[in-house]
Amino acid sequence: MRIDAEVVQSHNDKTLPDHRESFGHLSRVLEKKRLEPTHLIQKIQDFQIAIPSWALGTGGTRFGRFPGGGEPRSLEEKMDDVGLLHALNKASGAISLHIPWDIPSDVEAIKAHAASHGLLFDAVNSNTFQDQPDQLHSYKFGSLCHTSAAVRKQAIDHNLEVVRYGEALGSKSLTVWLADGSSFPGQMNFRKALQRTLDSLRAIYAGMPEDWKLFVEYKPYEPYFYSTVIQDWGTSHLLASQLGERAFTLVDLGHHLPNTNIEQIVATLMMQSKLGGFHFNDSKFGDDDLTVGAMKPYQLFLIFNELVAGMEDPESTNPSPAWMIDASHNLKDPLEDLLQSVEAIQLAYAQALLIDRVALEEARERNDPTMAQEILQEAYRTDVRPLIAEARLQAGGALHPIQVFRTISVRKELIKERGLKSLSTGL
Amino acid sequence: MRIDAEVVQSHNDKTLPDHRESFGHLSRVLEKKRLEPTHLIQKIQDFQIAIPSWALGTGGTRFGRFPGGGEPRSLEEKMDDVGLLHALNKASGAISLHIPWDIPSDVEAIKAHAASHGLLFDAVNSNTFQDQPDQLHSYKFGSLCHTSAAVRKQAIDHNLEVVRYGEALGSKSLTVWLADGSSFPGQMNFRKALQRTLDSLRAIYAGMPEDWKLFVEYKPYEPYFYSTVIQDWGTSHLLASQLGERAFTLVDLGHHLPNTNIEQIVATLMMQSKLGGFHFNDSKFGDDDLTVGAMKPYQLFLIFNELVAGMEDPESTNPSPAWMIDASHNLKDPLEDLLQSVEAIQLAYAQALLIDRVALEEARERNDPTMAQEILQEAYRTDVRPLIAEARLQAGGALHPIQVFRTISVRKELIKERGLKSLSTGL
Amino acid sequence: MRIDAEVVQSHNDKTLPDHRESFGHLSRVLEKKRLEPTHLIQKIQDFQIAIPSWALGTGGTRFGRFPGGGEPRSLEEKMDDVGLLHALNKASGAISLHIPWDIPSDVEAIKAHAASHGLLFDAVNSNTFQDQPDQLHSYKFGSLCHTSAAVRKQAIDHNLEVVRYGEALGSKSLTVWLADGSSFPGQMNFRKALQRTLDSLRAIYAGMPEDWKLFVEYKPYEPYFYSTVIQDWGTSHLLASQLGERAFTLVDLGHHLPNTNIEQIVATLMMQSKLGGFHFNDSKFGDDDLTVGAMKPYQLFLIFNELVAGMEDPESTNPSPAWMIDASHNLKDPLEDLLQSVEAIQLAYAQALLIDRVALEEARERNDPTMAQEILQEAYRTDVRPLIAEARLQAGGALHPIQVFRTISVRKELIKERGLKSLSTGL
Amino acid sequence: MRIDAEVVQSHNDKTLPDHRESFGHLSRVLEKKRLEPTHLIQKIQDFQIAIPSWALGTGGTRFGRFPGGGEPRSLEEKMDDVGLLHALNKASGAISLHIPWDIPSDVEAIKAHAASHGLLFDAVNSNTFQDQPDQLHSYKFGSLCHTSAAVRKQAIDHNLEVVRYGEALGSKSLTVWLADGSSFPGQMNFRKALQRTLDSLRAIYAGMPEDWKLFVEYKPYEPYFYSTVIQDWGTSHLLASQLGERAFTLVDLGHHLPNTNIEQIVATLMMQSKLGGFHFNDSKFGDDDLTVGAMKPYQLFLIFNELVAGMEDPESTNPSPAWMIDASHNLKDPLEDLLQSVEAIQLAYAQALLIDRVALEEARERNDPTMAQEILQEAYRTDVRPLIAEARLQAGGALHPIQVFRTISVRKELIKERGLKSLSTGL
Repeated sequence: MRIDAEVVQSHNDKTLPDHRESFGHLSRVLEKKRLEPTHLIQKIQDFQIAIPSWALGTGGTRFGRFPGGGEPRSLEEKMDDVGLLHALNKASGAISLHIPWDIPSDVEAIKAHAASHGLLFDAVNSNTFQDQPDQLHSYKFGSLCHTSAAVRKQAIDHNLEVVRYGEALGSKSLTVWLADGSSFPGQMNFRKALQRTLDSLRAIYAGMPEDWKLFVEYKPYEPYFYSTVIQDWGTSHLLASQLGERAFTLVDLGHHLPNTNIEQIVATLMMQSKLGGFHFNDSKFGDDDLTVGAMKPYQLFLIFNELVAGMEDPESTNPSPAWMIDASHNLKDPLEDLLQSVEAIQLAYAQALLIDRVALEEARERNDPTMAQEILQEAYRTDVRPLIAEARLQAGGALHPIQVFRTISVRKELIKERGLKSLSTGL
Repeated sequence: MRIDAEVVQSHNDKTLPDHRESFGHLSRVLEKKRLEPTHLIQKIQDFQIAIPSWALGTGGTRFGRFPGGGEPRSLEEKMDDVGLLHALNKASGAISLHIPWDIPSDVEAIKAHAASHGLLFDAVNSNTFQDQPDQLHSYKFGSLCHTSAAVRKQAIDHNLEVVRYGEALGSKSLTVWLADGSSFPGQMNFRKALQRTLDSLRAIYAGMPEDWKLFVEYKPYEPYFYSTVIQDWGTSHLLASQLGERAFTLVDLGHHLPNTNIEQIVATLMMQSKLGGFHFNDSKFGDDDLTVGAMKPYQLFLIFNELVAGMEDPESTNPSPAWMIDASHNLKDPLEDLLQSVEAIQLAYAQALLIDRVALEEARERNDPTMAQEILQEAYRTDVRPLIAEARLQAGGALHPIQVFRTISVRKELIKERGLKSLSTGL
Repeated sequence: MRIDAEVVQSHNDKTLPDHRESFGHLSRVLEKKRLEPTHLIQKIQDFQIAIPSWALGTGGTRFGRFPGGGEPRSLEEKMDDVGLLHALNKASGAISLHIPWDIPSDVEAIKAHAASHGLLFDAVNSNTFQDQPDQLHSYKFGSLCHTSAAVRKQAIDHNLEVVRYGEALGSKSLTVWLADGSSFPGQMNFRKALQRTLDSLRAIYAGMPEDWKLFVEYKPYEPYFYSTVIQDWGTSHLLASQLGERAFTLVDLGHHLPNTNIEQIVATLMMQSKLGGFHFNDSKFGDDDLTVGAMKPYQLFLIFNELVAGMEDPESTNPSPAWMIDASHNLKDPLEDLLQSVEAIQLAYAQALLIDRVALEEARERNDPTMAQEILQEAYRTDVRPLIAEARLQAGGALHPIQVFRTISVRKELIKERGLKSLSTGL
Repeated sequence: MRIDAEVVQSHNDKTLPDHRESFGHLSRVLEKKRLEPTHLIQKIQDFQIAIPSWALGTGGTRFGRFPGGGEPRSLEEKMDDVGLLHALNKASGAISLHIPWDIPSDVEAIKAHAASHGLLFDAVNSNTFQDQPDQLHSYKFGSLCHTSAAVRKQAIDHNLEVVRYGEALGSKSLTVWLADGSSFPGQMNFRKALQRTLDSLRAIYAGMPEDWKLFVEYKPYEPYFYSTVIQDWGTSHLLASQLGERAFTLVDLGHHLPNTNIEQIVATLMMQSKLGGFHFNDSKFGDDDLTVGAMKPYQLFLIFNELVAGMEDPESTNPSPAWMIDASHNLKDPLEDLLQSVEAIQLAYAQALLIDRVALEEARERNDPTMAQEILQEAYRTDVRPLIAEARLQAGGALHPIQVFRTISVRKELIKERGLKSLSTGL
């Protein structure tokens, strides 16, 4: 199923007058603050968020999985789903593949299919946290950190294979998320495991094309419940520093201990020119993988405050980070969930663009926390939804993506096409 | 120092045109949703938040205290400070006294002084977490839970004395926050300590006037670091249930373990008709006592969603809860901090009033989390600041309280009056 | 496979001299403290811990499952596995069934099989957190709390069916763990969901035989990530109180927010005569379901301190709680894991029995935390392994269960019998 | 007051027979494991733990302080208190000074006084988290990170002054704990604050004697409640790496977010040759500063497992870390509390020395978590108290330090000497 541009437009037409009024009011407010709406809209349109191929089916927990219907049955159908999102929000113009779940059999056909939806291929992702049916060695006790050289070699080779698939499709980076860890005190020699992981990553790094980047993700726990080899940004940063200039830390919002100040980590990494990528989601307890912005929208705004500050700093040498959603859709329709996530990201980004940075720095210099808070809240409390809607409208997307999604019964169509019990590959 | 109504009005005049435009736009938006601005403004004006007498000076931590200047030196000056707030925001029309820090020597004079500022006396608070110089028995090892009957009696008598002071001033409730707990495993017999606490509370309950309420606060830790006798809402509810109909649980936002779902606790307590009062503040780590809304404004909105649902439920028998700010102002000017807190509370309340409850219940009935989220976010993302400003304007307050506070140099005046090294009684 | 008593004895014989020396030393130490080893051994032997039928296979996480081999393929084989444990440790003399994973087809045969291993049937467990293939209504959005009366009825009927199976086998209690909750703010009406849950539980309670108990478990999160209907002991206690005298709270060690003082909850519940059962496991982050005692053995000891205090209190009316292990064996051999768990429970229990309660109460009365700590640590630091070993020895079990388990190659035998890729029913 | 060696010996005599039996039994057990008691005793005796000068008085919280009596009124009396501890346990042979609380007026006299107690001077500590009465600039908004160059210079100069005092007394290291942080989002420019901190530390590092080490402590929160400039080990490691070879990270057990795997941090730092020092205490919620081993003794053992592994690794280039207790004694007698802390540290160290490291590495190599756990628990469950007691006995200390402390009424004597209301300098 594809959404016709005219269908989108006809829906837009119905709510256009209300939008015009709201956008007009917001524009006047912004202009009084010497903020140029056109300029902001351009930035918002340029901000594209990759959708991971595994996020298009229903997710589950260890206790069970309650599938919806119409899930994509192939890589092509996954691209179709991202295409549906992008047709509505014009902000999901990239897909992030997960190997071996999404091995492209016919590379050229896949590239053409992607192009037909206007999609690029973002970072590719390896998988050494599960055993595949045909796999020689098990990852039950780790992959790149494993005590056995044979297992490590298998995992390194897998990563290099992922790089080759990505190369063929036009990706420029590899994200390594390593489940490797232990569940019991004593199980693992921490120092040796970290050394082996570094050595394995070095082999992968050496095997990447010269214009590729390596993103090293960190996570404190799960699926192991005592230790993770790359438990925090400090460990990831240590590895990335020792690997080389094209190795970076990747931050996943859900991969932190309770109460972590994530925005400060982001600032520190950008200061060190080591922030490579970002996985968006939201959570209350652990790596809950909920809709972005569903739980802590102000924290998201504070993170974007740092991201924008870093990206707009002329002295910064940090490369433009890769943006991706990494969530699990256990209860909601995955496509609706992703539309909500993208919108939440855009809102936080737009609000961060509104921050009066000159005044903020002045307040900081004179140690005036009251005013610093006022300045942040002034931006955060502004209703920037008309700005996002306008950015979508001008790009040919929908003023109200979820509304259109429901009105034209996308899910019903997908079920008709793919069946009620289709099963997405992967998790 | 008192702020003249004309001064406020002259400041309002300067930003009135901008306000008119914003409020006009918001009114049109609200009316399209069949929400009556006048009705909302009335509700906002009726929502008064008590200021505790101990919040008007600089707070500190165990590591030190960095005082500002112009702190109130007497109960009268504390009321003056609350009067300043109320003159600006018209939402701080009550003061909550802490005994023995604020013993009124001349009750009639104090009542007249309060009346001159338009202030009521909210719940009175006892103090058994510190030793006073003239005190016979120490509270080092507890008060109402103490192993010694003599210490318990002293603490009960103190609470009854607080009730008597409150009675004289027109208060109608007593808040008991009990530090009682232990810092080491084994130190305390949990069951006996809880029984003794119940018995002590019974004595206090029996000694209150018949139209008074008793609020039982809970807290998981601090100042003790292993156990607190009333560690959670479940324990407070157990005590309140066994005490009687006029005993209730009081919720302080900072008194929870990491990741607690506070809004669900609020809902459960209102369902049981046992939510008596609320202490507002914000926090990231523990009982940080920061400005309301400075850290987790969405959680505050979700709590108000439950509060409004409970208050507007015609079948609910929960009494109208007592609202109070309970924060510590270590870095900011206490009065600016309080202005920010009150505004954050009002915004969350107004946003909660905007929720389309009929649509929300429908979404819930059909298990549609996407739409339930949309409905909440629709309300939360609305910029309701013009509504709060209009409520203040109509009541004679300031459109921009902090701006006026700074422009007319309130703190400078207070320092002139009271000196740079004045010391507020209490913490 | 069954372990012959003579095999166990022949292994015991090898280490008997060492054991005799250690037990002799410990006996002298205990007798100096006026503790009677014979008396302690009797108590340890009487303390039987039920093994849940689902714990005998390899567990997994949402990221994958790495099965071992020789897993039990039927209810009979599960009982055989518990029989193996009991033959070695003489402390696992009960099995807790999970319906529908372990529906007994021939009740009399199952009872005879259990008797042949010396096993009793402990509490039965219902399952409304997964959908079964033949199920009419889905539990995706809850079971006993569901908005639809038809779903609730299905869940109630399922629970009553579980009761009937349990009745046939001789169980005397039903454990209800309810996943019911929500993952997104707004999704659920907290108050209505709690009311519906109470109503559903009332129907189950009414349908139980008169000598049965109902255990209501609580959990703050997972598999839902925003709210759980029965989120804490306070909610469970509220429900149990409203249900009646035979309804109790069940405490699972992994079902708490970070830093919760569980031992205090245990004390409070016993004080209210409402502690019905206990699920043992250990964890560092959430409901990690690790081997008991693997992470926080001192906390386990502190919990047993309260359990022993409650059980030995002549005035207590709390019934003897049901004891069960509830863990997930993702990396270790499930049987080895269970042997370690049972031993850790026995050690904590034995250490708690060693506490000098008279001296402890005296230290508490005089507020002497130094001595209270000394008294607890005196018990905890005592090496009570010889006492547990002696209790096993006298009951016909193994001095060193895991050593025997490995030496006689139990797992190898089970793989021979059942195959490498056998799959345990259930999770 | 000084404790006479004969008094200690006469007390030892009373319990010597029991000790001899217990130590004899333990020796036989150890020898069977090919562990040489004499060798272990030597290691235990060599392990000396510094006592900070501020730990000898009663601590408090922001809610109050409940002083005991007989607190040391001068630096000399603080050394006397440490001397008392060392006379009893022969393991507290160093004192760590805090400037400006303990400025030595007559260096030679102080050195002689220390020598008379057999005490060395451990790391010196600066204080920029409080304002001193005569201070020109306030540290309310930070010290080494401050926006004002003048404040930073004052803080740098203070640290260099501390180094000079330390140099005079024979210290060889400076510990910098920086409260610097912020309590409100927006208040601080994270990147600039970190840069300024690095620059300030560089000035201090450059001003240290060439044989000195700089220890950089980290802490996630408190006294500020939103961010700390050096929030975690990653940030400290970043700074230490950029400072130079003699800069190291210092780990304080209480300075971590909930559920942090501290032992893994220790292992990583030792692997990087960057673990400089250690502050011991225990906690349940935050930086609770409780008696070492009072809450999580198994975690302490796991940390010592890593420390011993690192220290015994012949390839490690990490220097021998500095050991210090850093606790707050709010309820217990400070000296009793410190005796309990030192004993808990010694027990954990001794247990870690008992670990069969060859077998452990073998279990790790073959991925056998069951056996790895058995090996750790075998060491942890051994009652090593007789070993510690024997180490004390042979060194001239007490078999049962706290028992002697109470029997000879040390506190009573101190109160007699110093009065009931003496006030320790500092916190």
